[in-house]
Amino acid sequence: MREWKAEILLEVPFHDVDIMGVAWHGHYVKYFEAARGALLRALDYDYPQMRDSGYLWPVVECQLKYVRPARYGQALRVSARLVEYENRLKIAYEVFDVASGLRLTRGHTVQVAVDAVNEELQFVSPEALLERVAEGFPSSQTDQA
Amino acid sequence: MREWKAEILLEVPFHDVDIMGVAWHGHYVKYFEAARGALLRALDYDYPQMRDSGYLWPVVECQLKYVRPARYGQALRVSARLVEYENRLKIAYEVFDVASGLRLTRGHTVQVAVDAVNEELQFVSPEALLERVAEGFPSSQTDQA
Amino acid sequence: MREWKAEILLEVPFHDVDIMGVAWHGHYVKYFEAARGALLRALDYDYPQMRDSGYLWPVVECQLKYVRPARYGQALRVSARLVEYENRLKIAYEVFDVASGLRLTRGHTVQVAVDAVNEELQFVSPEALLERVAEGFPSSQTDQA
Amino acid sequence: MREWKAEILLEVPFHDVDIMGVAWHGHYVKYFEAARGALLRALDYDYPQMRDSGYLWPVVECQLKYVRPARYGQALRVSARLVEYENRLKIAYEVFDVASGLRLTRGHTVQVAVDAVNEELQFVSPEALLERVAEGFPSSQTDQA
Repeated sequence: MREWKAEILLEVPFHDVDIMGVAWHGHYVKYFEAARGALLRALDYDYPQMRDSGYLWPVVECQLKYVRPARYGQALRVSARLVEYENRLKIAYEVFDVASGLRLTRGHTVQVAVDAVNEELQFVSPEALLERVAEGFPSSQTDQA
Repeated sequence: MREWKAEILLEVPFHDVDIMGVAWHGHYVKYFEAARGALLRALDYDYPQMRDSGYLWPVVECQLKYVRPARYGQALRVSARLVEYENRLKIAYEVFDVASGLRLTRGHTVQVAVDAVNEELQFVSPEALLERVAEGFPSSQTDQA
Repeated sequence: MREWKAEILLEVPFHDVDIMGVAWHGHYVKYFEAARGALLRALDYDYPQMRDSGYLWPVVECQLKYVRPARYGQALRVSARLVEYENRLKIAYEVFDVASGLRLTRGHTVQVAVDAVNEELQFVSPEALLERVAEGFPSSQTDQA
Repeated sequence: MREWKAEILLEVPFHDVDIMGVAWHGHYVKYFEAARGALLRALDYDYPQMRDSGYLWPVVECQLKYVRPARYGQALRVSARLVEYENRLKIAYEVFDVASGLRLTRGHTVQVAVDAVNEELQFVSPEALLERVAEGFPSSQTDQA
């Protein structure tokens, strides 16, 4: 299957840096989300399309592991990669220092589909997601990013 | 008229402190909002009641003046005081250091009513607000906070 | 041993609520940190004391599991409980809805000691922490919160 | 004199959007700061250079006027323009919708120089800033952005 992956670039903003001179650990949830948005837009299934498909996808799990800190103005590359999609949406993230290529942080999020009307949890991902993920399938050998 | 005023207490959280060891200036918009929420709840016209009254009240102006910095864990008292309400909602804020009583920051916000359905700007505040503000009127001499 | 645990109360602020009407998942890292600060102050080993002891304690892992959402103004109780301290500082968190007592979110953080001067990672927690944790030991039966 | 001005592009992130579906007003302080950082880097006088010059430049005033809202994913262009520098650093900002060119928000910040050692307020801007601003002077006719 095609690997669904997206990357974004960002620079650590001044207001994200804490008293120790490094990006505060909680801000990486935002960095992950920015990369997830890029991945979901590549799938044509970002927030507006989710809502239009009749499902919301709340995050039910978020994990972050911090290896090296990032400082003000440091250029970061953040990748988001689709890991599971059949019963839930699991996305894995890596944050790299652009200059050295070193990995600074990694983690994942898990989202589940909830019916937007009756708020029922879906134990199988809705067709709206499955179709979009499958689209890349036949061309998987050549379509890899 | 009764003076509509509310106060909250907060401690500067670690994640609000920047590389210079002081609360980053943008976070005071949150401190103002926390005090505004207390004031609007005293008026029984916070976000849920605004929405139910058929109006949204976007902030159209925000001003902040910083006199002294605040540090991690510092106890702050934030007041919000209703300054105008007939054509727009203007609220003035002051942030004080609890220990010394010194004023650290002041500012104001201006909000205007917008019809939630047709998004039309209202040049006179809706009855829903006027009634609530007037309620305190007869008892103004004794009701002051 | 005495159980080291602290709790805080908070209300979900307006600026933490997302387009779906619930507290955005990343803000819980702040709620955890507020409870951790209370726990560390009970231990007399919060950020200023850490720095004075010659060590910094960066967060190297953060995990969050979301069971139920929280809405604007909802009163939350957040607990932080010391789980490990001998080689690293592991703290477990739970977020409860005050009204119903239901648990909304849980998670943990792991911090490690780093020498503030030479930035060397410590594989055994410094005495400054061990002493403080041990202080509660003899009186554990009666001192429980 | 050369006009000192810088612009950045950004897309409204999901976590900046509030329950009304628009970027929460307080987040614009961050958008302003991102543009200010670009301007100060063009001047070679961003936070690291300020600190190395022996001065800190706290923000003492911030004003924002909101004309039109911004929604999730909306592409914004934010400009920062140097307005005063001789006695204080005043920067004016404008936020535009990229698609339509319409101006959504405008505002300004004022910063003053403070001696990093004795914390004394400077009533005249330090040479470190004056020199950098003047550098563009002779080539002002041709160097305009």
